[in-house]
Amino acid sequence: MANETGYSVAILGATGAVGEQILNTLDNKNFPISDLKLLSSKRSAGKKITFRGQEYTVEEAKPESFEGVQIGLFSAGGSISKDLAPEAVKRGTIVIDNTSAYRMDENVPLVVPEVNEEDVNNHNGIIANPNCSTIQMVVALEPIRKAYGLKKVIVSTYQAVSGAGLDAVEEMKEQSQEVLDEKEINPEILPVGGDKKHYQIAFNAIPQIDKFQENGYTFEEMKMINETKKIMHESELPVAATCVRLPVETGHSESVYVEVENGSPDAAEIKNTFSTGEGITLKDDPSQQVYPMAVDSVGLPDVFVGRIRRDLDQSNAYHFWVVSDNLLKGAAFNTVQIAESLVKLGLIKA
Amino acid sequence: MANETGYSVAILGATGAVGEQILNTLDNKNFPISDLKLLSSKRSAGKKITFRGQEYTVEEAKPESFEGVQIGLFSAGGSISKDLAPEAVKRGTIVIDNTSAYRMDENVPLVVPEVNEEDVNNHNGIIANPNCSTIQMVVALEPIRKAYGLKKVIVSTYQAVSGAGLDAVEEMKEQSQEVLDEKEINPEILPVGGDKKHYQIAFNAIPQIDKFQENGYTFEEMKMINETKKIMHESELPVAATCVRLPVETGHSESVYVEVENGSPDAAEIKNTFSTGEGITLKDDPSQQVYPMAVDSVGLPDVFVGRIRRDLDQSNAYHFWVVSDNLLKGAAFNTVQIAESLVKLGLIKA
Repeated sequence: MANETGYSVAILGATGAVGEQILNTLDNKNFPISDLKLLSSKRSAGKKITFRGQEYTVEEAKPESFEGVQIGLFSAGGSISKDLAPEAVKRGTIVIDNTSAYRMDENVPLVVPEVNEEDVNNHNGIIANPNCSTIQMVVALEPIRKAYGLKKVIVSTYQAVSGAGLDAVEEMKEQSQEVLDEKEINPEILPVGGDKKHYQIAFNAIPQIDKFQENGYTFEEMKMINETKKIMHESELPVAATCVRLPVETGHSESVYVEVENGSPDAAEIKNTFSTGEGITLKDDPSQQVYPMAVDSVGLPDVFVGRIRRDLDQSNAYHFWVVSDNLLKGAAFNTVQIAESLVKLGLIKA
Repeated sequence: MANETGYSVAILGATGAVGEQILNTLDNKNFPISDLKLLSSKRSAGKKITFRGQEYTVEEAKPESFEGVQIGLFSAGGSISKDLAPEAVKRGTIVIDNTSAYRMDENVPLVVPEVNEEDVNNHNGIIANPNCSTIQMVVALEPIRKAYGLKKVIVSTYQAVSGAGLDAVEEMKEQSQEVLDEKEINPEILPVGGDKKHYQIAFNAIPQIDKFQENGYTFEEMKMINETKKIMHESELPVAATCVRLPVETGHSESVYVEVENGSPDAAEIKNTFSTGEGITLKDDPSQQVYPMAVDSVGLPDVFVGRIRRDLDQSNAYHFWVVSDNLLKGAAFNTVQIAESLVKLGLIKA
């Protein structure tokens, strides 16, 4: 299906929040596409989407949908990926999966191109895109890891509602209006659509993202912990996470504490090291109140780092604040970057 | 002025967010008052406030206002405390100051009754009430400190707007409505009324509370660090803080990491230790999605602790989530508790 000017691409979950951003990103990056299929669940099939001036009808995803498709960009939920990724791979598609279904599968590389691009070489048909909150943290940590090594990482997150989907965003907005109008609210989705209880997100902070594991950590927290180790090839690195949902539409923020392994560079050196990091944009000038914020990150692919300072008690420890658009670098942008890595490393031919 | 049934009390800053809660708390606690003066700046003088069925006219605070006053509860801003606290003390008043003016003064005890009530014995006329974000953290940490000793504390805060005053709450609400209506916004107060730049708080997270110091930390962060050491008499304890303002009206939340000095109790033992802490209410059952949240803390004097779990890599380290009403235990309630400590320890006579 591919012609000489591009690749045959299918997007599964085309009608979702991330699917929409994948299309935007493919367009913004001028990713060469000869043939495009927009796929979804049965429920959303039939919708019309315009891409590069052409109207597409969203089709229900089936195993046969992937015949002749070179790159499948999946973001329609874990169970759909579990069903359809093997079918796509069987038909020769390389799947870049944006769900948690395969992230910790040892046969599946988990890739953030700024950190471990070369891992795409080891793919067996599927490459996993990490969790949004993990991606921005590892991009920020990578230059520090390269320069000094990492000894310990502790993160507390401030995560946006769009990470839970478009319905959750709608719930937050309606509920905010209800609270402002002093009306009764009826939470139905957040913190986790599939969990037992639902709580007010408007003008609140909920210390739960995804369900709880037996060990008292949420799955979101365990994703950050395990995925960071896998992406960085640092299986022994101590990583701890507390994940919190905020009434923010888009843009995850994170308060990160890091201890380095070698040396005890001062804050200026650490700042300079951050500034050399691929994908990082420094926003750090306290004297001018310059620091990253969620609302300023929306629509931008950068990982913004600021509030960089040395711990006052431990000379090899630092604090910083990292913000990124969770739908872009946290999802769609990183997914398309992986597709570009496939091209760049010659793993796929137009 | 005091008769045998109570104390002569003056409230400076009676028309503010904290002043209002001080009046509520005095009433709820049946604090014995024989004579009450409500004081404010010139701007708010003349307002009428009803307390225990009696209407009071707020008077402009002057040095002479404190003649015959036994207890002065101050929350009208640091510069007003600097001016008037010495005048009140000169007239025999014991000042409980809710501003940052005297907190780190070595002649002034800084008191959270659950932690260091006996320090009120050392007062020289002024007793300082700590910063809101500090109070709830030290109440939560105290039973852990007593049982195992503290080795290191790292906190990331999720702070409510009412900590910045009633005008800031108004700004947040109006701005939220403007964002929902997709109108232009004009931030004028937050993150810090007196700083150069003002940013959107609606649907955002701002990593600045109070102004920045030369060292890259904000004053709010340094307050948490220094006040914690002073209150706990742990001058060498490593404490680190990152303070963040959220679009939450009332209720500060904190993600706390703590390493203990002695032993490595498991999560169940640590949970049990928290549950013995004075002033603490445990809300911690992940299987039932039970954890503390800002909106549930409003109007309650408790310090709520949950999400308690052991670090996965370090056996003497723990994470928890602590939430409290920043206007009550974080301010008014603690202030009135200190007044009660004065009575209890016989430092003042009805």
